[in-house]
Amino acid sequence: MARVAKTQVEFEGQFYDKFIVIEGEDVEAWSSDKSFEVVGKPQTRVDGRERVTGNAQYTHDIQLTGMLVGKILRSPHPHARIQRLDTSQAEALPGVRAVLTPDNVPDIPWKGGQTKLLDTTLRYAGDEVACVVGDSEAICADALELIDVEYERLPHVLDPETALRDDAPRIYDSGNLLGGEPKVSERGDIEQGFQEADEVVELTLRTQTALHNSMETHGSVAHWEGETLTIWDSTQNVYGVRDGVAKALDLPRHRVRVIKQYMGGGFGSKNNAGKYAVLAAIAAKRLGRPVKVLLDRREENLATGNRPSSVQTLKIGAKRDGTLTAMAHRSIIGVGAYAGGGPSPAGPTRRLYRCPNVRTEDFVVVTNTGPFSAFRAPGYVAGTFALESAMDELSNKLGIDPLELRLTNYAEIDPLTEKPYSTKGLKLAYEQGAKLINWAERERTKADQSANAKRVGVGMASQTWGGNGIPPAYAWVKLNPDGTAVVITGTQDIGTGTKTAFAQIAAETLGIPIEHTRVELGDTQHGLYSPLSAGSMTLASIGPAVRGAAEDAREQLREVGAQVLEVDAGDIEIRDGKLVHNGERTPIAEVLSKLGDFMITGKGARGPNPEDVSVNTFGAQFAQVTVDTGTGRIHVDKIVAVHESGRVINPLTIRSQLEGGIIQGLGYALSEARTEDDQLGLVLSDNLESYKVPTVADVPEIHAEMIDMPDPQANNLGVKGVGEPPIIPTAAAVANAVADALGVRPTELPMTSSQILNLLEQQQGT
Amino acid sequence: MARVAKTQVEFEGQFYDKFIVIEGEDVEAWSSDKSFEVVGKPQTRVDGRERVTGNAQYTHDIQLTGMLVGKILRSPHPHARIQRLDTSQAEALPGVRAVLTPDNVPDIPWKGGQTKLLDTTLRYAGDEVACVVGDSEAICADALELIDVEYERLPHVLDPETALRDDAPRIYDSGNLLGGEPKVSERGDIEQGFQEADEVVELTLRTQTALHNSMETHGSVAHWEGETLTIWDSTQNVYGVRDGVAKALDLPRHRVRVIKQYMGGGFGSKNNAGKYAVLAAIAAKRLGRPVKVLLDRREENLATGNRPSSVQTLKIGAKRDGTLTAMAHRSIIGVGAYAGGGPSPAGPTRRLYRCPNVRTEDFVVVTNTGPFSAFRAPGYVAGTFALESAMDELSNKLGIDPLELRLTNYAEIDPLTEKPYSTKGLKLAYEQGAKLINWAERERTKADQSANAKRVGVGMASQTWGGNGIPPAYAWVKLNPDGTAVVITGTQDIGTGTKTAFAQIAAETLGIPIEHTRVELGDTQHGLYSPLSAGSMTLASIGPAVRGAAEDAREQLREVGAQVLEVDAGDIEIRDGKLVHNGERTPIAEVLSKLGDFMITGKGARGPNPEDVSVNTFGAQFAQVTVDTGTGRIHVDKIVAVHESGRVINPLTIRSQLEGGIIQGLGYALSEARTEDDQLGLVLSDNLESYKVPTVADVPEIHAEMIDMPDPQANNLGVKGVGEPPIIPTAAAVANAVADALGVRPTELPMTSSQILNLLEQQQGT
Repeated sequence: MARVAKTQVEFEGQFYDKFIVIEGEDVEAWSSDKSFEVVGKPQTRVDGRERVTGNAQYTHDIQLTGMLVGKILRSPHPHARIQRLDTSQAEALPGVRAVLTPDNVPDIPWKGGQTKLLDTTLRYAGDEVACVVGDSEAICADALELIDVEYERLPHVLDPETALRDDAPRIYDSGNLLGGEPKVSERGDIEQGFQEADEVVELTLRTQTALHNSMETHGSVAHWEGETLTIWDSTQNVYGVRDGVAKALDLPRHRVRVIKQYMGGGFGSKNNAGKYAVLAAIAAKRLGRPVKVLLDRREENLATGNRPSSVQTLKIGAKRDGTLTAMAHRSIIGVGAYAGGGPSPAGPTRRLYRCPNVRTEDFVVVTNTGPFSAFRAPGYVAGTFALESAMDELSNKLGIDPLELRLTNYAEIDPLTEKPYSTKGLKLAYEQGAKLINWAERERTKADQSANAKRVGVGMASQTWGGNGIPPAYAWVKLNPDGTAVVITGTQDIGTGTKTAFAQIAAETLGIPIEHTRVELGDTQHGLYSPLSAGSMTLASIGPAVRGAAEDAREQLREVGAQVLEVDAGDIEIRDGKLVHNGERTPIAEVLSKLGDFMITGKGARGPNPEDVSVNTFGAQFAQVTVDTGTGRIHVDKIVAVHESGRVINPLTIRSQLEGGIIQGLGYALSEARTEDDQLGLVLSDNLESYKVPTVADVPEIHAEMIDMPDPQANNLGVKGVGEPPIIPTAAAVANAVADALGVRPTELPMTSSQILNLLEQQQGT
Repeated sequence: MARVAKTQVEFEGQFYDKFIVIEGEDVEAWSSDKSFEVVGKPQTRVDGRERVTGNAQYTHDIQLTGMLVGKILRSPHPHARIQRLDTSQAEALPGVRAVLTPDNVPDIPWKGGQTKLLDTTLRYAGDEVACVVGDSEAICADALELIDVEYERLPHVLDPETALRDDAPRIYDSGNLLGGEPKVSERGDIEQGFQEADEVVELTLRTQTALHNSMETHGSVAHWEGETLTIWDSTQNVYGVRDGVAKALDLPRHRVRVIKQYMGGGFGSKNNAGKYAVLAAIAAKRLGRPVKVLLDRREENLATGNRPSSVQTLKIGAKRDGTLTAMAHRSIIGVGAYAGGGPSPAGPTRRLYRCPNVRTEDFVVVTNTGPFSAFRAPGYVAGTFALESAMDELSNKLGIDPLELRLTNYAEIDPLTEKPYSTKGLKLAYEQGAKLINWAERERTKADQSANAKRVGVGMASQTWGGNGIPPAYAWVKLNPDGTAVVITGTQDIGTGTKTAFAQIAAETLGIPIEHTRVELGDTQHGLYSPLSAGSMTLASIGPAVRGAAEDAREQLREVGAQVLEVDAGDIEIRDGKLVHNGERTPIAEVLSKLGDFMITGKGARGPNPEDVSVNTFGAQFAQVTVDTGTGRIHVDKIVAVHESGRVINPLTIRSQLEGGIIQGLGYALSEARTEDDQLGLVLSDNLESYKVPTVADVPEIHAEMIDMPDPQANNLGVKGVGEPPIIPTAAAVANAVADALGVRPTELPMTSSQILNLLEQQQGT
């Protein structure tokens, strides 16, 4: 029967208590040494064909009868007040159906009340002013130019450090420092820790604002059927969009259906309902026709979030043998115009190494720039760059091999929660990575491969991150009379291979070929509640529910089969689509066809998280680079990545995750940066010409592998997440390799040629 | 745990054994005297607004990116062989993407192997020859004219009686009489029965071929995503279309998803997969783009089925007191070119009255006309016209009041199954109908209202029909944290109000307002197996599963609520969206919001049918008509209809069913008929100008009501079906009223003015 259970969850480094409802008992975990038919085998994506043939229906592909298009007018100023807004000319344009403005939409609070759906105060260049709805995109584009707005310009500030000054323009009455004070976390006695240190290093590091640049921009299609709203949304969180839109429009949840079948990337920027969704819904209701609002690339770069910039000062004290005694980490995080909080770069500092005395301090600062949003491993990417740079400095100072220093401070229990780890494969990852990069012989590699102006360096960095799921999550498995199965959940495959993993789990559990499975997800109304796909937790959250549902269906199939075959259910096994009993093998379809049309339905729920252990993911990356000291150009020769995230369900999709994370990490390390004109307060890099994401030509040799280490304490599959881990240490590993090559340390991301040339100039000057 | 149960089902007068799978035990039936909050109250349709505002998405409204259109070339001859088929000119037309012909599609058997998907022998004018797929309907229409076909004409036969002659053209090698002999059913000793009779009447009656003319024509949209086919289909049977298409294309069932959200009528003609669906699927696969194939009105009238014509000879013997001693019923049924069987008009003869000696004989005849399909109460409409006409003749001959004669032969147990009825409200229907039409005073009515050439008559007729559901059927109910509920089944609302009834059942069971429910159906992949919506059985099949799922969800909600409120689950009741405990009332949303995001899911399955009783529906209709003896025109003044179909869930939608059935029955009685040119073998009435369905001007005063008589033996709701019953007796009641007015009996449908004038001429001649 139904049971309420309390469970602790970790999401992006934060811990929460949640209550969940599960029916009956959770399914027992697969043992570590279980042998498998489907799980753990490389499996091409079950929806690969529709993706590559263009058959997959993305939100952008949705066409509905009578559908209109919406386009958003955005603030041309970084800080302004609307004095007058005249839409009469726009409304008079043939083909324009409505213009939504602050005057005619409800006062819907947005971003925790910092702004509204359409606000008359605009806090960054790109902030939403109005929305034109018309027959075509071209008509809407023309209409946007016909809207006459008189802005009162207000003083602006873009730089977080400047924004902290007393004389800086205030963006909110409460000041620019969110919460009015820094967020401080401390354990042990930091002063005493530094007193105990034999050596201390201190570094200040700067990281840029990075833009997600998902290939599919943000957008929604809204369609009302009577009192029920359907939204097709490019989202990582169909239930979150449902609940967000329901709240904004004051609708009960059964009246909002959110669908996302395919999505072209999100990386954390699509975790919540966007203004475009609510504007589309309001316009669709008012006009009695479906409305599609899709952002273009420029809007995507201005308004949909970013990885915030940071200025981090990290001070580490250690004994002569390398034992850490103290770490102090101070960060200024620029979160843009709207943020309830900001991702802390201090997570790795608090968690990666055994250190008794740690103090971290985060200044979360608002500025007149686009709002931050979660971005693949929020905080940890910038934080690991800082921590692992400082660790390498320390190893230099102490004359200890960097890898040795990390092993010296290896945490056997989680320093943050003080609980033992369920599993921890970091040592194995270090070993395997070191072997693959030939760490022991790296001085010889450098000597062999450096020539003229080109200097070779090798560096490494470690990764930790959460990675167990967030219960609750539910799944159903339906068995057709021909022995084929349909898995139903409410989650979304954000491109990571969720569907394929679920198909493997269902096929394995049911004892049928994977071709006999089909996974349905991404629909709040037809599916079952699942949490968002973020925090590397989709598989660990919903996968165990899929297994539970498949177990339930399989048991029923055994019972039904037993009654048809007139044998004991206990004597039946199911393998390869057949009921095996007393040496005979009867295809499921043959047994069930005797019963006519019917369906078996199994039900599964994700159980609570374990209480007494810390479920974390780990990894190590090693980089070899060649720096051209003439041009300052960094060439990444090779990345070796070895990660541990519990059991490997699908080696193929895991490799995609690893490679994708590393490539995105290389962009962060070397080329990506939002640039602004401080005077005008405008973003300059609002397109893919000026905002440089890596292209295929920038991708080095990548050797990525997993330590396959099932974690039966984490959940019934023994899996942990892998979406975020691979991006976490890349920039740090590359920076350490560059420092190794040059003997001077880059402390700013991205590591541009001009930064390198400046460093070399300073080096020669000293 | 899962259980296999055997159950008998009745579908359109035929009995079958089925096996079903249910989990756990069936929910106990609602008692007859239970009081309700929502059930039994008039409820406007939960999807009424989207229907009337045009927001509802019918199959015709589906638009997909890159979608192409298909149009079917049809045989211009009633019987022919394709000698040559040249598509080169059509293929050369810009915008034409493919032409499917017998040469390039697989040999897919159709209609039990009588023909193929695209056959080279054509057996009626309208038979499918080829399918052009192109960018627009206009292009396809042009391309159809460019296909060059050389036909070898074969001799044809349209009339079923002619087709039975030895010298008639043979449509199949096995002859034109299906099965080679008539289907005979006999009980008692027919000869002795007639010997025992004091009076015998014998009548020959003719009924026309009637066309369904659903407002939304037949059609499909087919779309492949990788290996998975999605079909939007205008269908009464999403799982049937799934299975039919899967079989035709040799696909496993989890690879075919069929969706039908809204439908503009079917009446039995949309019970199976159409050729248009398979052709669309083949073209879509071949071209890698979605394809829509919609039939136009002409195709709808030629190729999608009809109520077959009949020539019925009915002989009835009775004692002087009216007691029936023998009934012999011989029918010739013209089922068109393709039929595995034909609906027997003899059902009512075998079942309506107590009579020990009955013999029925059906000659099912193929002809070169469009194929028959089920049409609202197949067989019973024509059969009731014959039986109730003959009963009135008998009452005339015996000088017994027609209603009295029927009561004399009232069946207390089912004459067909010899089981007692679960409930039978026919006597109450007779009483109430007689009262409403003022039966006792009808001679005075006639005298008062007849004037000059206008003669008034009053007649009545009875109805019986099955009406319990066909298990298995399954449902889920999901409860959101705000206390709203989503009901999920796999059935389809074919316009009868299924969604509304399910919403009432769920709301009643859960103890929440109906506004807090939403019903999702019409999707094979997201929903759960349900049988087709035909045979008046949707509510009785799937409604009990909905109740079961809601009961399951409610019990879980009580348990969860008990844990949150820290009280005993047994002390909690749920009413009006609130948990009621110890005199306190806490809204569900308030209790569940303490638990964060989650979902409660309940599961229900329809249990087996009862074994020891016959579950039938009953009704009586009374007609008052005025016949203009000058013009022969029949004016229906009033119809009184009183039916008994178990418990009434929604009086409003039931009234719609009654009125709709009666209006359709009036069309059948008075104006609708497919007409053909015998020489050419072509249908003349292939449009709504020449095929006369009733318009609003033809609708008389209708007084329709239900005997609300819950039937706890039928299923857990106590409901029986009501979709077909109201059309069954209408034509018979009108014919009896006309005979009452004129003193001569019309024996052919429709009762046209010229038939009436002929009858009057003969009457005067005698």
